[in-house]
Amino acid sequence: MAYETLRWEVDADGVALLTLHRPDALNAFDLTMARELLQVFTTDARDDAVRAVVVTGEGRAFCAGMDLSAEGNVFGLDETQDPTPESIRERFDDPVYVDGVRDTGGKVTLAIHALPKPVIAAINGAAVGIGATMTLAMDLRLASTKARIGFVFGRLGIVPEAASSWFLPRIVGVQQALEWVYSAEILTAEAALAGRLVRSVHEPDELLPTALGLARSFVVDRSPTALALAKQLVYRNSAAADPLEAHLSDSLAMWHAAVGDGKEGVAAFLAKRPPEFTGRASDLPRIFPEA
Amino acid sequence: MAYETLRWEVDADGVALLTLHRPDALNAFDLTMARELLQVFTTDARDDAVRAVVVTGEGRAFCAGMDLSAEGNVFGLDETQDPTPESIRERFDDPVYVDGVRDTGGKVTLAIHALPKPVIAAINGAAVGIGATMTLAMDLRLASTKARIGFVFGRLGIVPEAASSWFLPRIVGVQQALEWVYSAEILTAEAALAGRLVRSVHEPDELLPTALGLARSFVVDRSPTALALAKQLVYRNSAAADPLEAHLSDSLAMWHAAVGDGKEGVAAFLAKRPPEFTGRASDLPRIFPEA
Amino acid sequence: MAYETLRWEVDADGVALLTLHRPDALNAFDLTMARELLQVFTTDARDDAVRAVVVTGEGRAFCAGMDLSAEGNVFGLDETQDPTPESIRERFDDPVYVDGVRDTGGKVTLAIHALPKPVIAAINGAAVGIGATMTLAMDLRLASTKARIGFVFGRLGIVPEAASSWFLPRIVGVQQALEWVYSAEILTAEAALAGRLVRSVHEPDELLPTALGLARSFVVDRSPTALALAKQLVYRNSAAADPLEAHLSDSLAMWHAAVGDGKEGVAAFLAKRPPEFTGRASDLPRIFPEA
Repeated sequence: MAYETLRWEVDADGVALLTLHRPDALNAFDLTMARELLQVFTTDARDDAVRAVVVTGEGRAFCAGMDLSAEGNVFGLDETQDPTPESIRERFDDPVYVDGVRDTGGKVTLAIHALPKPVIAAINGAAVGIGATMTLAMDLRLASTKARIGFVFGRLGIVPEAASSWFLPRIVGVQQALEWVYSAEILTAEAALAGRLVRSVHEPDELLPTALGLARSFVVDRSPTALALAKQLVYRNSAAADPLEAHLSDSLAMWHAAVGDGKEGVAAFLAKRPPEFTGRASDLPRIFPEA
Repeated sequence: MAYETLRWEVDADGVALLTLHRPDALNAFDLTMARELLQVFTTDARDDAVRAVVVTGEGRAFCAGMDLSAEGNVFGLDETQDPTPESIRERFDDPVYVDGVRDTGGKVTLAIHALPKPVIAAINGAAVGIGATMTLAMDLRLASTKARIGFVFGRLGIVPEAASSWFLPRIVGVQQALEWVYSAEILTAEAALAGRLVRSVHEPDELLPTALGLARSFVVDRSPTALALAKQLVYRNSAAADPLEAHLSDSLAMWHAAVGDGKEGVAAFLAKRPPEFTGRASDLPRIFPEA
Repeated sequence: MAYETLRWEVDADGVALLTLHRPDALNAFDLTMARELLQVFTTDARDDAVRAVVVTGEGRAFCAGMDLSAEGNVFGLDETQDPTPESIRERFDDPVYVDGVRDTGGKVTLAIHALPKPVIAAINGAAVGIGATMTLAMDLRLASTKARIGFVFGRLGIVPEAASSWFLPRIVGVQQALEWVYSAEILTAEAALAGRLVRSVHEPDELLPTALGLARSFVVDRSPTALALAKQLVYRNSAAADPLEAHLSDSLAMWHAAVGDGKEGVAAFLAKRPPEFTGRASDLPRIFPEA
């Protein structure tokens, strides 16, 4: 599968590098890139040979945001739709939601979030608008000293999208989230680090090696099943009503792990040899009622 | 409308300054101030000419807490009420809840929280008890070097109120929230900054200009509709079960923005001119089922 | 009640010191320790004479994790159980959940969490696996400079358990939680402090005195009822959908406090004398519908 706006490569350890690739347009996000990101995260990245994904941008930007200079309907919305109070009530019965009202960026970030493997953003330059919010659905964010990050929606009369209002307060707290959303300012890498949006800042030529090395350290000699279950547990239970809910889901996850890859893990640990796990992220036990 | 315990002024940019004004009593919170705060946040501050609100205290205190020296029923409670297990179960069917049991401070903070505009606390001195918890419902907190902040309920045999147990862990995390609530200590501005309760600390004479300037930077050339929707999205989705819920509400918000002020915002951006938004915070589209 | 794996002592102020006591095994967690921890937190620690609990480890470790060298079924699981999708749906109707599937560590952490008093971890050395996750259900974590903390499940093909996926993101945010869970690295005390997992780091011989002094400062001249209600409010409302929910529960808590220990608290404050509270943590008013 060849992509027009993306590059995709997977190394011998199963670490994939996804590069946003419209360098002449500062990797601006258009409807083609949206479609291709949705595709890569729901097909290529789902392959069991892929163990983790690092996302970066070609050239000097990470992603300069929605391509506002595109012809026609830049947001991909259908103005003839009528999302009245009636349909608001109904939409919660219909998670598919109608096209033309569903936010394009959100389709992409939900797919990133649903990938049962670690995803790491290597923010090499400007990450603005959807270029910033798409990184929030990735598990960790590393930045180059040249990164510039902006939740700039307020300047355009629009709102933070791509489910960013779910992720951002969970990463940086509500006070910091509100300030960045209200101010719509472009943050330096240092400001993003001080506000805990990015976990570390690196010299430009150190960024990608560090991100790839981190991804590798997460997956080599690790159970894909255990990693995938851990990702589900942390996100889901960060929003659970009660520790009892976490106890119910992590009990199931532990049960399945302990009769599966956990046996090999403990045996290898006691024998002081590397484990040989057989679990697959494409075949996870269900640990949540509706998942 | 003249207030006994408050001063209210709105400048040409729509930035309102609300001053707690009982300087001889260190701006202590009594039932008159409670009633007037409820009124100002549900009437004056709702005017579309008001774009953001900065709250500070007259004289050397921000608010020294509940006026415990007041005559009679300082908490405004009705001891003849009987909130039995039966009525506990019922109260969740009745969000109005009965007077005499409803916490007075909470009525005020729910009104602050519901205001669809940025609210900034400029904590100029002592902010203790309800003087501390009322700032938690404001979106950002700036402190003077002279600020002293205390969640002192534990010393009085009472509990953190005013919905502070919802706000505080979202701002500073549960560990820090529990320590401050357990210790009931008076925090310096520096300790509040280290714990991420306040976003910055300023020299006393820089506090108010900085807070007003920040408020101004949030609203000049911004869409009131977009700001109001963003505030709802961040708070509501900070507590949502799932990013899908955020996707549903932010899709609706984006749809309405994109066919409304977002058109003008994009046009102005492309033409490199200031936008002229026509949306009003008093006329928001519904983006949550029950909102 | 004598314990095989624990030491339990209560001082004159009601501050209990619980010591994990299998020093020859680095206080590793086995099924006996699990049973005894469950017992101590549901019996001894529930005594009204106990006002707060400090937990530490005997010798050089805090708790080196699950004792993987134990004979037989180290996780206490029953492999003949079949937690199918059917039973997943049902388990949410049955909070008791079946033994042999319920995670052993989670039974312990739910009991710690449910204790209506402050619990402080004094992490004196290695705290690995369940040795790390059990501290998350304690309200505050202090570490010695010799502490080494690891969420090492990923190396063994198992997952973070003991309801840790509920607590960890509430303490350190989702980004930091995911990194530690993915990396399975052993953290120094300094790294744990930088990531806000522990609230302070101390010289080894200062750790226990500081933790005990902190516990004492939380309870002397404080109402046990007010402390217990505050603990419930902060945890429960950290996960509530809406500030209105906090308003409903804190109104009830304030009502009960104001007609109970709060009267004495205010009277003592005005008279500048120490309060004499009569409330008991074993007899709390109900402030949540199902609690």
